[in-house]
Amino acid sequence: MTAFPEIESIAYEGPDSLNPLAFRHYNADEVIEGRTMREHLRFSVVYWHTFRATGADPFGAPTMQRPWDDGSESIENAQNRVRVAFEFFEKLGVPYYAFHDRDIAPEGNSLSESHKNLDAIAAVMKEEQQRTGVKLLWGTANMFSNPRYMHGAATSCNAEVYAYAAAQVKKALEITHELGGEGYTFWGGREGYQCLWNTDLKREQEHLARFLHMAVDYAKQIGFTGPFYIEPKPKEPTKHQYDSDAAACLNFLRQFDLMDHFKLNLETNHATLAGHTMQHELEVAGSAGALGSIDANTGDLLLGWDTDQFPTDIYVTTQCMHSILKYGGLKTGGVNFDAKVRRESFEPIDLFYAHVGGMDAFARGLKIAAAMRADGRLEQMVADRYASWNSGLGAEIEAGQHTLESLEKIMLEKGQAAPNQSGRQELFENVINQYM
Amino acid sequence: MTAFPEIESIAYEGPDSLNPLAFRHYNADEVIEGRTMREHLRFSVVYWHTFRATGADPFGAPTMQRPWDDGSESIENAQNRVRVAFEFFEKLGVPYYAFHDRDIAPEGNSLSESHKNLDAIAAVMKEEQQRTGVKLLWGTANMFSNPRYMHGAATSCNAEVYAYAAAQVKKALEITHELGGEGYTFWGGREGYQCLWNTDLKREQEHLARFLHMAVDYAKQIGFTGPFYIEPKPKEPTKHQYDSDAAACLNFLRQFDLMDHFKLNLETNHATLAGHTMQHELEVAGSAGALGSIDANTGDLLLGWDTDQFPTDIYVTTQCMHSILKYGGLKTGGVNFDAKVRRESFEPIDLFYAHVGGMDAFARGLKIAAAMRADGRLEQMVADRYASWNSGLGAEIEAGQHTLESLEKIMLEKGQAAPNQSGRQELFENVINQYM
Amino acid sequence: MTAFPEIESIAYEGPDSLNPLAFRHYNADEVIEGRTMREHLRFSVVYWHTFRATGADPFGAPTMQRPWDDGSESIENAQNRVRVAFEFFEKLGVPYYAFHDRDIAPEGNSLSESHKNLDAIAAVMKEEQQRTGVKLLWGTANMFSNPRYMHGAATSCNAEVYAYAAAQVKKALEITHELGGEGYTFWGGREGYQCLWNTDLKREQEHLARFLHMAVDYAKQIGFTGPFYIEPKPKEPTKHQYDSDAAACLNFLRQFDLMDHFKLNLETNHATLAGHTMQHELEVAGSAGALGSIDANTGDLLLGWDTDQFPTDIYVTTQCMHSILKYGGLKTGGVNFDAKVRRESFEPIDLFYAHVGGMDAFARGLKIAAAMRADGRLEQMVADRYASWNSGLGAEIEAGQHTLESLEKIMLEKGQAAPNQSGRQELFENVINQYM
Amino acid sequence: MTAFPEIESIAYEGPDSLNPLAFRHYNADEVIEGRTMREHLRFSVVYWHTFRATGADPFGAPTMQRPWDDGSESIENAQNRVRVAFEFFEKLGVPYYAFHDRDIAPEGNSLSESHKNLDAIAAVMKEEQQRTGVKLLWGTANMFSNPRYMHGAATSCNAEVYAYAAAQVKKALEITHELGGEGYTFWGGREGYQCLWNTDLKREQEHLARFLHMAVDYAKQIGFTGPFYIEPKPKEPTKHQYDSDAAACLNFLRQFDLMDHFKLNLETNHATLAGHTMQHELEVAGSAGALGSIDANTGDLLLGWDTDQFPTDIYVTTQCMHSILKYGGLKTGGVNFDAKVRRESFEPIDLFYAHVGGMDAFARGLKIAAAMRADGRLEQMVADRYASWNSGLGAEIEAGQHTLESLEKIMLEKGQAAPNQSGRQELFENVINQYM
Repeated sequence: MTAFPEIESIAYEGPDSLNPLAFRHYNADEVIEGRTMREHLRFSVVYWHTFRATGADPFGAPTMQRPWDDGSESIENAQNRVRVAFEFFEKLGVPYYAFHDRDIAPEGNSLSESHKNLDAIAAVMKEEQQRTGVKLLWGTANMFSNPRYMHGAATSCNAEVYAYAAAQVKKALEITHELGGEGYTFWGGREGYQCLWNTDLKREQEHLARFLHMAVDYAKQIGFTGPFYIEPKPKEPTKHQYDSDAAACLNFLRQFDLMDHFKLNLETNHATLAGHTMQHELEVAGSAGALGSIDANTGDLLLGWDTDQFPTDIYVTTQCMHSILKYGGLKTGGVNFDAKVRRESFEPIDLFYAHVGGMDAFARGLKIAAAMRADGRLEQMVADRYASWNSGLGAEIEAGQHTLESLEKIMLEKGQAAPNQSGRQELFENVINQYM
Repeated sequence: MTAFPEIESIAYEGPDSLNPLAFRHYNADEVIEGRTMREHLRFSVVYWHTFRATGADPFGAPTMQRPWDDGSESIENAQNRVRVAFEFFEKLGVPYYAFHDRDIAPEGNSLSESHKNLDAIAAVMKEEQQRTGVKLLWGTANMFSNPRYMHGAATSCNAEVYAYAAAQVKKALEITHELGGEGYTFWGGREGYQCLWNTDLKREQEHLARFLHMAVDYAKQIGFTGPFYIEPKPKEPTKHQYDSDAAACLNFLRQFDLMDHFKLNLETNHATLAGHTMQHELEVAGSAGALGSIDANTGDLLLGWDTDQFPTDIYVTTQCMHSILKYGGLKTGGVNFDAKVRRESFEPIDLFYAHVGGMDAFARGLKIAAAMRADGRLEQMVADRYASWNSGLGAEIEAGQHTLESLEKIMLEKGQAAPNQSGRQELFENVINQYM
Repeated sequence: MTAFPEIESIAYEGPDSLNPLAFRHYNADEVIEGRTMREHLRFSVVYWHTFRATGADPFGAPTMQRPWDDGSESIENAQNRVRVAFEFFEKLGVPYYAFHDRDIAPEGNSLSESHKNLDAIAAVMKEEQQRTGVKLLWGTANMFSNPRYMHGAATSCNAEVYAYAAAQVKKALEITHELGGEGYTFWGGREGYQCLWNTDLKREQEHLARFLHMAVDYAKQIGFTGPFYIEPKPKEPTKHQYDSDAAACLNFLRQFDLMDHFKLNLETNHATLAGHTMQHELEVAGSAGALGSIDANTGDLLLGWDTDQFPTDIYVTTQCMHSILKYGGLKTGGVNFDAKVRRESFEPIDLFYAHVGGMDAFARGLKIAAAMRADGRLEQMVADRYASWNSGLGAEIEAGQHTLESLEKIMLEKGQAAPNQSGRQELFENVINQYM
Repeated sequence: MTAFPEIESIAYEGPDSLNPLAFRHYNADEVIEGRTMREHLRFSVVYWHTFRATGADPFGAPTMQRPWDDGSESIENAQNRVRVAFEFFEKLGVPYYAFHDRDIAPEGNSLSESHKNLDAIAAVMKEEQQRTGVKLLWGTANMFSNPRYMHGAATSCNAEVYAYAAAQVKKALEITHELGGEGYTFWGGREGYQCLWNTDLKREQEHLARFLHMAVDYAKQIGFTGPFYIEPKPKEPTKHQYDSDAAACLNFLRQFDLMDHFKLNLETNHATLAGHTMQHELEVAGSAGALGSIDANTGDLLLGWDTDQFPTDIYVTTQCMHSILKYGGLKTGGVNFDAKVRRESFEPIDLFYAHVGGMDAFARGLKIAAAMRADGRLEQMVADRYASWNSGLGAEIEAGQHTLESLEKIMLEKGQAAPNQSGRQELFENVINQYM
């Protein structure tokens, strides 16, 4: 039995292909900078959007038509869904997937029942992983959908909710570890506030730090060595989330002594909601040694909510891959499509169109970024701008040999600084276009 | 001779006064929570907007008509302007002012000439301070207006520009110290980038950290003990400034071991440009022990640039004063009107209207915030929300007595968390309106 | 039986009351400018948010706990809900309510069944209207929730969907008329596009115009004389809605000869999503003679989606009531609370807190606006600014007596225009604060 | 003598060229859809940014280094600047330019002196036009820079300022006509408000309409037949400009009976400041028969002011050219680079880099859009979506043969509408990428 009878597998057909169900750029075994494209991109499909989204939005009912899903919360339906998902992963040719606990298994009437449900599904996933070779990029716990988490999970004003969340993370960590997950992610969807007047921000943040330390301790205890990721997002569903952007996350991690255990999982749409470009967030994380993984999608910069569209803008995918290559490539992380088909794209085949387009856009971005690096013109243009720091006064300053006094002395003698060079932004932008 | 012959001084006339040149709420000697309003609010006028703004905007020429200013860059004109400024401070009844080096004295043809000009003006300021008792809240160096700083100052790609900036800060620190300034501020107007493709973000941030450490060292050397402030702003004039918001600043200070020497100078309009409320920024800074001073103004949330309008919204001034009182009140910092009259409000008298309105709005905010605290209803409502953390399970978690395992054990037994309470946001908002 | 046993009715207790379940400002029978507050404000409760919202959001499940609602789609449950609603309207003391067809009655398996369901509920509403005296402000048809409308209703690419929508509007008009509704509203939630590449904008807009003309014709046929309203909103759920703001609606109405039949129903949160203040939208509509009704709520200007919060900002309610009084007051329209309690405010009592706060905020805005008008200082300040247009050259220009040539001749003689007066924006803002 | 000795002319070198001072895509004589690229694109350089911008911004002084400009306001300097400009136009190979009156000639001490100055410069422009064959795309009057216009020009509260503006427009129209200008543009930089409390919006808009009618009348009188353009922009320098977007302009033109005389001049950066895509604005104008010309540039969607950057995003230029071709191509209008080099790109050569990049981006957009049209796949996909409107029920509705009643009758029989088709947005986006 198959859920996608019309698709055998998505093949690479080269840049001239007009077949929307073939790759024009993603050629998994092609080697670039010493690694295959598969190894560079480490594509991952997300279980939540791709297998649990319904097409509902705040103004409308579900639209998605999934013949394999009977709509029930039964274990059997959930297990069947797992098999469909792995068929999809295989046909698409992605090496990874990611999930929340509550995506894969229904929540039970009690914590123990929920745990049991999870075990029942994880068993099927393990089988399917072994059958297909598809691996788990990272796991996570959904601590935002259930009404219990209305006031937050690790930042809830209700201590028992906090305890419940702790239990949920414990189990999600165990399952992730059991399935060989290469990382574990925290996205604090409701860890923030709706209204500052009713909120004790300081106390909530301390609770959150305590929570993450407990997770670190437990990971150590069970031998889970993959990194933890924090995923920044500024708002939605809350008015303000504590992990609002890369810098806010790093500040939190530094304040509470968590830098050794966490890296960032950056998402394009979250970056722009925070008022930043994805390239900015990648540079902030990368320069701090904290670039872990990316959630590949795009938002609409003229809309103020998380549209989670599939990435198709080659400029953006080029920026992503350029920064990723610059900071040493993805290691445990991946290019994880945290993206959903539009509500109006309700047919299963749209899932293929969407992922093929996203994978090709990233493959193309990788090739362009690699071409830029191979060629070196851009990097040289940047290096030339900072030449004054490589010797003489600049080098001395970098070496810590100067004080305000010594610098004043020098400049009093010179009277004026050496002339500036043009920033050449337009030339930079044109050179970028030469690679497109 | 007087610049404002129509004004003798701005008097307190009480809430029923319709006189726009009198205070309706600011009664300097009135005692609230054990301090006078003067001591709580520590109002400060900024030299740049109030005495150097011209009304020019990107689409239009200067409009301001200042009879006392001959428009020249002469020392005499600059000295005369100081005297006018102090007449304004006195008549308005503010205890503080703030300036940039280049606001008060013209830039010379060389660094040494600029230094000399500064000395000539500072001498007059000192006289005027002594004559009037008005004090310097903080000083700073303008490292963004001169074309030399087009690529940044402490983050310039030009090492000599960096050195020049260092010399400028040294002198500005000395002048600030000489004038008894209670703090020194860094606003990194061009410390950021216009384009990431031509920028080495990591190297620039390291240069910036080195720069701030040199300033800390030099302050120690000359005996300047007032705090340094960093003023967050996300963008404008650059596309992105490194000190983009309170969290980004704190992250930077933590990363480069500067937390002991810096506090934050928060501005309402900068907060909203960063996508945050001012209340949020105050809480972030306050909860980190880094709330130093505020730049009191307002932006227009539907506009995307720094409008620097005078604050008149009582909700916002109440939020400011509530957070300030909560975190112990202003110590070295103040309520500094980093605000400018509109381009169309080009008459000197508009400077009085604007400041009187801003001072009254803050005075009213202080009274309302103090009433909230005296009354305690709001605080009690907040405390009630977190009651579950004060004993039992919550208290144990806070005391570090739990692990994921111990919490799972408890919750497996309970099965579900205790029910949540309503967040009561609407009630909170209505109670706020009861105080207005 | 009662749904709200703890509430008898919300009484007016005056401005010093601290009772959050009493009015501090709304005194229904108090006369202002010759009309009672009840007549000025014409408060209306919306059925959708107040009786159908569940607290679900894109990241979370329902939270609302409504003891009177069994969660079923039965007619009996729907009828019972009507009785609860009218109990709420009565206890709150509002004269009006508003609904969509699908709010009040469940959608059937066929159009005829849906019609039948509507009739069954409308009968109960009619009884309750007669029992309580509460009236219908306006009715409307929900043409955005059902998946059928994914591509729009009157702008759907599917002609049968368009026809279905037409049938739905016909029935909704009939029911509205039957219940004595004073108006009928079109909010085109999905009348727009998600993606311009797959959209024929021109053809869709022509379809929409045809649709509205059919509604106008049918209203005439059945004797419905109340106005139609168009409700502007720029986006959400679509990327772009054709009725994006007041000006876009007016342009559409003018282009398709519909100005005689439509007025605008303006919403604060929609205004700000479009980048405008509510005051702007009120002035645009009012100055075009098209100000019909308002949806009273507020958004969060730092969030990019429709938060539909209850209005509590007195500045905004003052602006609303000032413009409404200026353009002659509400006639068929009302102050309709298109606002929802927060997801975390899940108890029935929160519905009372929220509406009481919103009603009081508008009552206060009305009183302040009326005081401004009675006093006349502000109006005089505005009139003074335009004095040059009341006689001489200005009056001649307004009378159409000039050409470019005649004006050039005059100005060549004068050489320069008369000096400008200060815009006095800060003074205006301070005077506003005197009324607060 | 030459201002740009290093440049002879910008040649077409084909897509593989790495020469940043050559065209890779713009091949002026290449024929596409029956017209040369020169005729399709009608490139125009703007005098203001390219020859009058200084690099000043709200936080910094001028940076631009222009060896040909002595910085004075002398007629000789202005005349010399004209010759440099035409050298630039020639070397760049653009057929058009555009200017404001005050860009080309200094404002005099009186209106008559300003007129005289304009005549003196226009004479040189006429010579240069004849010498080079470069033509005037459109002229306009700067009615926003001089302080006289602080409160607006055609919407000023000062009637003499209005008269002065009228005189200025009369002269600018004459000069435009004399130079063979193909259009005349109104951008109402200060026609709007800073504060609604001090503004009579209705009266101001009526004044503006009267003003435009006078211009229409005078154009007829002097035989100027080119179209007038209105250029939408929502804000900056004012808080709100009356011509805020395409729809607002069309509404105004319809209300005041000006549609026959005006078309729209759309700018990308203005579109995005208004919350719209440029593609949206093009479709709104095009579908209303009002697409006149475009100001080609780009903004930064994460910044809230008019950055006026050179366009380099191929997706956007493709959208522009696709809509332009769809609506019949540019006739009197052009692709006018209302864009400025960054403040840090202060050398004359940067002007070449910038324009070459912009021209190539548009040439590439033209080629891609033409390929889409030649190929027809996209158009077919759109046509297929609307197939139900081409016959049967849809065609009857379009023909006006239905009423709500007749449609209800049909749908009561059917019970449900025909199923929807997937919107296929992801497929559309991927097909777009196939052309890139």
